Amino acid sequence: MVRRALKWLPWGLVPAALAAGWAHAPSLVRFALAGLALLPLARLLGEATDALAERLGPVAAGLLNATCGNAAELIIAVLALRRGLVEVVQASLSGSIIGNLLLVLGLALLAGGLRHRVQKFSALAAESQLASLALAVFALLLPALFFHLVRLAHRESLALPLSVAVSVVLLLVYTASLVFSLHTHKDLLGTHAAHEAPPWSTRKAVTLLLVSGALTGLVAEVLVGSVEEVGHQLGLSQVFLGVVVVAVLGNAAEHAAAIVLAWRNHMDAALSICFASSLQVALFVTPVLVLLSFPLGHPMGLVFSAVEVVAVAASVGLSGLVTLNGESNWLEGVQLLALYLILALCLAFLPAQEALLPL
Amino acid sequence: MVRRALKWLPWGLVPAALAAGWAHAPSLVRFALAGLALLPLARLLGEATDALAERLGPVAAGLLNATCGNAAELIIAVLALRRGLVEVVQASLSGSIIGNLLLVLGLALLAGGLRHRVQKFSALAAESQLASLALAVFALLLPALFFHLVRLAHRESLALPLSVAVSVVLLLVYTASLVFSLHTHKDLLGTHAAHEAPPWSTRKAVTLLLVSGALTGLVAEVLVGSVEEVGHQLGLSQVFLGVVVVAVLGNAAEHAAAIVLAWRNHMDAALSICFASSLQVALFVTPVLVLLSFPLGHPMGLVFSAVEVVAVAASVGLSGLVTLNGESNWLEGVQLLALYLILALCLAFLPAQEALLPL
Amino acid sequence: MVRRALKWLPWGLVPAALAAGWAHAPSLVRFALAGLALLPLARLLGEATDALAERLGPVAAGLLNATCGNAAELIIAVLALRRGLVEVVQASLSGSIIGNLLLVLGLALLAGGLRHRVQKFSALAAESQLASLALAVFALLLPALFFHLVRLAHRESLALPLSVAVSVVLLLVYTASLVFSLHTHKDLLGTHAAHEAPPWSTRKAVTLLLVSGALTGLVAEVLVGSVEEVGHQLGLSQVFLGVVVVAVLGNAAEHAAAIVLAWRNHMDAALSICFASSLQVALFVTPVLVLLSFPLGHPMGLVFSAVEVVAVAASVGLSGLVTLNGESNWLEGVQLLALYLILALCLAFLPAQEALLPL
Repeated sequence: MVRRALKWLPWGLVPAALAAGWAHAPSLVRFALAGLALLPLARLLGEATDALAERLGPVAAGLLNATCGNAAELIIAVLALRRGLVEVVQASLSGSIIGNLLLVLGLALLAGGLRHRVQKFSALAAESQLASLALAVFALLLPALFFHLVRLAHRESLALPLSVAVSVVLLLVYTASLVFSLHTHKDLLGTHAAHEAPPWSTRKAVTLLLVSGALTGLVAEVLVGSVEEVGHQLGLSQVFLGVVVVAVLGNAAEHAAAIVLAWRNHMDAALSICFASSLQVALFVTPVLVLLSFPLGHPMGLVFSAVEVVAVAASVGLSGLVTLNGESNWLEGVQLLALYLILALCLAFLPAQEALLPL
Repeated sequence: MVRRALKWLPWGLVPAALAAGWAHAPSLVRFALAGLALLPLARLLGEATDALAERLGPVAAGLLNATCGNAAELIIAVLALRRGLVEVVQASLSGSIIGNLLLVLGLALLAGGLRHRVQKFSALAAESQLASLALAVFALLLPALFFHLVRLAHRESLALPLSVAVSVVLLLVYTASLVFSLHTHKDLLGTHAAHEAPPWSTRKAVTLLLVSGALTGLVAEVLVGSVEEVGHQLGLSQVFLGVVVVAVLGNAAEHAAAIVLAWRNHMDAALSICFASSLQVALFVTPVLVLLSFPLGHPMGLVFSAVEVVAVAASVGLSGLVTLNGESNWLEGVQLLALYLILALCLAFLPAQEALLPL
Repeated sequence: MVRRALKWLPWGLVPAALAAGWAHAPSLVRFALAGLALLPLARLLGEATDALAERLGPVAAGLLNATCGNAAELIIAVLALRRGLVEVVQASLSGSIIGNLLLVLGLALLAGGLRHRVQKFSALAAESQLASLALAVFALLLPALFFHLVRLAHRESLALPLSVAVSVVLLLVYTASLVFSLHTHKDLLGTHAAHEAPPWSTRKAVTLLLVSGALTGLVAEVLVGSVEEVGHQLGLSQVFLGVVVVAVLGNAAEHAAAIVLAWRNHMDAALSICFASSLQVALFVTPVLVLLSFPLGHPMGLVFSAVEVVAVAASVGLSGLVTLNGESNWLEGVQLLALYLILALCLAFLPAQEALLPL
């Protein structure tokens, strides 16, 4: 009975967070409660998506996963955009890629490596996912690089039209990669059965999907409403909050799954989660948010700061080096985590966004 | 008879372009006619070089290919330099590398991938060519990086002496690589017989080489004479014209050959064309032009803009990732093309060269 | 007898250098004598370390090598720091990494390649060392990148606390890698017996270690005391002196060993020296110097110039490309040396440190 109570304990966080938001509790309390309440919600959202996908044909399942796989992240970002927190959203997108490739992969390699001396996986599969990821990330970062090299006076007029054009190209590449994996080369990728979907009926799955989506929206509203105040109170920059805090919360479900899989020595599936999730952020979540930002009234361009560009490029390069030889050990996990820690230290030492050069 | 007429049709463009140049037709007309007329000329120049190489011993043939392989590009660049279009020439050099690695390789992988599910090639051969290319490209870009980090006041006095010194080093490396491929390790590279040389007599080959070279020169003069006006009229920067337009025209023959080879599933030869052509631009064409720019009266340094440095480095990295695992498919072609498209979009959105920071 | 005399000749340089320092001879004379006298001293220091390691258990031997392996470098750097030559020390650290990866590896591949047509080595071992190196180097360079992107006004207050925090993380990673190689995975790395240790008694080894350490300190004092004047006289920047001169002298013993091993076709051991030495500089020597710089009175941050960041990143990337396929030849050696030459040319053309942008 105690175990059962423990299992239901996290769900107490959801009403607590909503109550704190309604009562306008101190911002740190709202931030902490909403952040923690998002963890079981993101997990339920993922499970409902998997259960529904199980009931559909392979193509429909693929499309569902491709669009709802990062639902929690999308919901948080849309609500933050509506409040005009453009910098936090941008930072949470690059932070999501960095977090998947350094924090999650690092924890997975460390957890797996502590139990298994050397872990093997398919270098070929890792390489091909990594190539896709690198192409996506470069395409995403190129506009930012260009903005940094253009005179300030011209930047305003360029940023948005170029960002929209590039977003359309990214979505076309995403469509092409869906055609590739769901149609022309569907056998190539195999079914790595990363998660075991819960055996729910279609009706239950749809209901839970809608309920958890709606609750995620309400809780995310509380979280997003407190981000700015928390940043001021703790003296942390918006970039730090976006890269380290929001990105970690939005991807918590993937984090847990990848670490558990590595612990059980299913390295191919663990790597696949890290790479696929980053790829979805680069090719789907980001361009969709750029296009949605116009009707939401706070246009967002693909104008990542130079710090983010460097950090994302380094993450892709290093996760590549670690996985290229088809073997991993605990030291590689420590190295990735050390890099994440150094990155977080650098961001935490920045007193505020204004300290950055106006690149 | 209709087919025959069609075969000869492209040659009508040569007198048309020359007439337009002589009559000083509107610049867009001159630009378009001269650009199109260069395509059959560059092809003939390549065929005559191959046919003559066939009649010579292996070492002489290697040297001929090493110097005349990029003849069309060299001729266009020398004429543009004489007119002082230093920026267009620099942009066409980096554009040639980018074009070979993203546009040509992307089209080849896409064309081949649409016909063949998965295409295999020697990862080892690709890797060793890529290492040479990366070394050459880094050597080429290092001076530019240094200039960007030096105070403006010191830049003028440094640019030319350093560029000359680096060009001499690059030509020594090129000489070493000829000794390697034609003497000490001549069997290592094998004869991949990328093109089938036409069975012409030595006399015919030499005549056609001279005639096509002279015509290329005349037509290129018309093209180069219209570039500046076209840029102003269309509101495109010199960098865009150099990177996208001039570089594509100067390498049209290689483009066609690589795509046809990929279509026929000769992937090793197709990749070799893309890599070898880029290597020749980095180690031979560029330093020769730097050294020639002094007698031509418009000294050109190795001062590529930061945008070009980033784009070239990204192209080398991504073509490497795609070829490293010894397999390709149509999606990888799409990804390379998407990157080229995004790059071209970025350059097209730049209103003019002055918009760039004075790096 | 003549051979014997020749063998002892280098030791004459030590008293000559000390006498020149005591008599305050012209700075160029002091610099040259002290530089040359460091070569036999660094060699003896290395041999004494190896001989002592031989007499100890494997873990103690590993720890000894891990701390005394770069003793000559550490001694020179500490003396230079005490005199406030912070820029020279920073440059010698990045120069040590660049020198190992381009100059030493290039000379080794060239020397080996002239005698052996193609040299093979374990690509897997090279890759795993390279991954460690890349992670270490990125961790080392990230703070520098951040400083370059932060407004000048905020830089002063950030540089030192962040550098100390990152140095602690680097030392923790170094400790983890010692636990990995000396405890959990000690068999994985094998005993590649790079050097043959001289068969000295423990007593003799300890005595020679202390004597050579003390003499290195005295001679290094002479060298460091002349560096600034030599820079002014020859018109060379502090960065050039640090990267090219001090770094080459401090690593002379490794250089000779790697080249001899490549000549004898022991490529795995030769590569291992280049990579391990760079790794020790990045993870041990540099953070120790940062922490020691506070009691020495001239605090040094991890604030490498942008030129150094680019050069180190390029060195890691290129040595990776060359070793990734498990084969080498003389041309690859030439290419690495050409890159080192171009880098040295760029640094030599910089008139003085002030010419660099205040990044």
